[in-house]
Amino acid sequence: MRFPSPVSLSWIADLIGAEIVGDPNLTVTGINELHKVEKGDLAFVDHPKYYDKCLNSEATFIIINNKAVTIPEGKAILLVDAPFDAYQKITHHFLPFTPSNKSISDSAFIGEGTVIMPHTFIGNNVSIGKNTVIFPNVTIMDHSIIGDNVVIQAGTVIGGDAFYYNTKKNRDVWFKKMNSCGNVVIEDNVEIGSNCTIDRGVSASTIIGKGTIIDNLVQVGHDVVIGKNCIIASQVGIAGATTLEDGVTLWGQVGVNKTITIGKGAVVLGQGGVTSSIEGGKTYWGTPIMVAVEKHRENLWLKRLPELWKKVMDQK
Amino acid sequence: MRFPSPVSLSWIADLIGAEIVGDPNLTVTGINELHKVEKGDLAFVDHPKYYDKCLNSEATFIIINNKAVTIPEGKAILLVDAPFDAYQKITHHFLPFTPSNKSISDSAFIGEGTVIMPHTFIGNNVSIGKNTVIFPNVTIMDHSIIGDNVVIQAGTVIGGDAFYYNTKKNRDVWFKKMNSCGNVVIEDNVEIGSNCTIDRGVSASTIIGKGTIIDNLVQVGHDVVIGKNCIIASQVGIAGATTLEDGVTLWGQVGVNKTITIGKGAVVLGQGGVTSSIEGGKTYWGTPIMVAVEKHRENLWLKRLPELWKKVMDQK
Amino acid sequence: MRFPSPVSLSWIADLIGAEIVGDPNLTVTGINELHKVEKGDLAFVDHPKYYDKCLNSEATFIIINNKAVTIPEGKAILLVDAPFDAYQKITHHFLPFTPSNKSISDSAFIGEGTVIMPHTFIGNNVSIGKNTVIFPNVTIMDHSIIGDNVVIQAGTVIGGDAFYYNTKKNRDVWFKKMNSCGNVVIEDNVEIGSNCTIDRGVSASTIIGKGTIIDNLVQVGHDVVIGKNCIIASQVGIAGATTLEDGVTLWGQVGVNKTITIGKGAVVLGQGGVTSSIEGGKTYWGTPIMVAVEKHRENLWLKRLPELWKKVMDQK
Repeated sequence: MRFPSPVSLSWIADLIGAEIVGDPNLTVTGINELHKVEKGDLAFVDHPKYYDKCLNSEATFIIINNKAVTIPEGKAILLVDAPFDAYQKITHHFLPFTPSNKSISDSAFIGEGTVIMPHTFIGNNVSIGKNTVIFPNVTIMDHSIIGDNVVIQAGTVIGGDAFYYNTKKNRDVWFKKMNSCGNVVIEDNVEIGSNCTIDRGVSASTIIGKGTIIDNLVQVGHDVVIGKNCIIASQVGIAGATTLEDGVTLWGQVGVNKTITIGKGAVVLGQGGVTSSIEGGKTYWGTPIMVAVEKHRENLWLKRLPELWKKVMDQK
Repeated sequence: MRFPSPVSLSWIADLIGAEIVGDPNLTVTGINELHKVEKGDLAFVDHPKYYDKCLNSEATFIIINNKAVTIPEGKAILLVDAPFDAYQKITHHFLPFTPSNKSISDSAFIGEGTVIMPHTFIGNNVSIGKNTVIFPNVTIMDHSIIGDNVVIQAGTVIGGDAFYYNTKKNRDVWFKKMNSCGNVVIEDNVEIGSNCTIDRGVSASTIIGKGTIIDNLVQVGHDVVIGKNCIIASQVGIAGATTLEDGVTLWGQVGVNKTITIGKGAVVLGQGGVTSSIEGGKTYWGTPIMVAVEKHRENLWLKRLPELWKKVMDQK
Repeated sequence: MRFPSPVSLSWIADLIGAEIVGDPNLTVTGINELHKVEKGDLAFVDHPKYYDKCLNSEATFIIINNKAVTIPEGKAILLVDAPFDAYQKITHHFLPFTPSNKSISDSAFIGEGTVIMPHTFIGNNVSIGKNTVIFPNVTIMDHSIIGDNVVIQAGTVIGGDAFYYNTKKNRDVWFKKMNSCGNVVIEDNVEIGSNCTIDRGVSASTIIGKGTIIDNLVQVGHDVVIGKNCIIASQVGIAGATTLEDGVTLWGQVGVNKTITIGKGAVVLGQGGVTSSIEGGKTYWGTPIMVAVEKHRENLWLKRLPELWKKVMDQK
């Protein structure tokens, strides 16, 4: 997340009770997880395995639990016992969780001609465009941005927290959820079916591109970016931080792995499991995913196994 | 959809700004998509590839974007630039979307002894029978018909719009949703679990037959017809316009393709992918679907491959 | 279910109109389905195939539709025409369905610091601990027990009825739902995503162990017991009465069969189908489930089939 305005490193150190190694008057512009971090940002690291990666990332300031590290030129560290807790404290300070107790938060903006049906919840700082229809029992959590001419059918949840946890198996509770500092952005002319779940990003936005259509019971993980004019059939699941380029088609019950890319215009047939990135312009099938005609051929070979076995036995 | 009462062809032409080729005093009884169309009905076609199919269908009146076609005896055409938009205009005229802003619409009928729990939405012209129980946070959209002794558990959505779109890849927004003119019919003694989605038909009814039981998170597409006394386990997905005959069993996470038929008493084991129609009275498994014992045998052959390979190598 | 206090056998016989064969002054402590029944309990049986199993179970009292059976020493039978209906009558007497018509039932207990967001339903006798957050449009049905520091995201349904039916194919309605007499217990520090469904037990509790995290659109069947610190990714389905030991990981869209056990620390990769019990400490994949490296090897053998075929042909 970007801070509303930059703050000094000493102010951050006070907030989290850290010792600064470096210039305390430097200016901090934001805080992000490692793969989204930029110059001027804070990042945190709490495991020696990742120390070097974090120290040599784009981050200018590193919240860390060990002083005995080599600090690159122009960077500073903030020494604390529990870097993850410090991260939570900083993000919570700038983006506190203040749940609305109204059906439609006072800070929500609803465009002209938009219909909101009963029992729908619209959280804080949500913005909805014009001529959009939100069916009953929908939940739109804080900071979501929804365009014009969008349809969201009943029971769908937009902007749920990312399924993203700090894991340590040497404590009583292994998983601690990282604050979700990102949001959901739904562009114009998107249609989303019933009882879908679209999670907000951890530090960036989960984006559904213009004109994309999504059927019922679909899961879209945190920080997923879906292009324009995609078709996503019922019960598809897309794991975190994956990209679908424009015009992708995923048929029913397809599963897509995290942090991969599905190329422009690719088609994945029903129940396919997209284990790694795939090129655009082709049709795929199976788990692990294969080009559909090759998977079909493999199935045919499989059916010829008894015949092959017999041939081999006959040769004896 | 059938119109409430027949109208003249010239009245329709005025509504959509069409040029009539044929007798303007003919009477129009309804409008339907091609596979449900009957004599006296309107249908529309906007792609030369489907001109002949539509002109020679049961439809008496064809909304089309080309005058240079051969009109069969006893039929008339309505010439417009955008046949799909004309279809939308006609269906919207007879079945306008006027969303209820109440928890239970004034035009809904609720039978004696029926319990509606909090935060449930009941739309316009919904009819619910006797001694039915609707749990909290359920959404029942307009025109749904629900029988006696039905149970619908929390969060389920009945009568969401069909996932059915007019597609043109040469415009900015590729997909335009066809108005759903059908509804959902749930017969007596049906039980539906939590967070399911049962879509309404595009021009006919999505039907759940008497005594059928459906577990949680199940997707039933538009115009699906499910027979009596079927069991549908959790996370099953059934695509549009498919038929399940009586007494069918689908175990967990089964996926069923669109516009196919599953025969009476068929059983599909967990995670099966029913790619094409299957006969009744048998047990099936796998993707693509196979008779279960054959699939099992195939798996055994697969396990013997290393042994076969060795045999072949030894023969060298 | 355990009765609030023991009752005499003759009182039960009056309630269900049964003939007692045995001592009418014996004391009955509860009623349960066969696999949970204990000494002093009632059980019911209505099919000759299961007569012996039921008569020789832990149950002291057997509701049965046939007098001509051998009653074990120290037991008694209750003769009725329809044992299942008698079971329903008894369970309904002690645990009547009296749906709350309020957003939060008067008999619900909500701990200090707990946040309940709008459009959430909390049923009768629900207990929620401290500092728990319940998002909007959640449904928590009667008798659920939820701990401290729990997060339940929007649209999730806790405590829906078990998908558990008495089946007789010689009557008009084949399936009659057994009353769910169990509940759901969610321990401290559990996090559950959006639009999940966690069913209550039939006669015991469905339990989610401390610190377990569950993503969106997950199905947990009746009487499932999940250990501590498990990770369950999106769209996983777990069928009834299955056990997950501590520290189990199920990735996206995994399906788990009923009444099996997944051992401590086991990992199941995406879309796996866990057909039978698996040992802890290993990584699994595929349907039917296999140790992942073996499944991977099997896939490689499959890819070598054309090469093998060629070898065999060349030997001719």
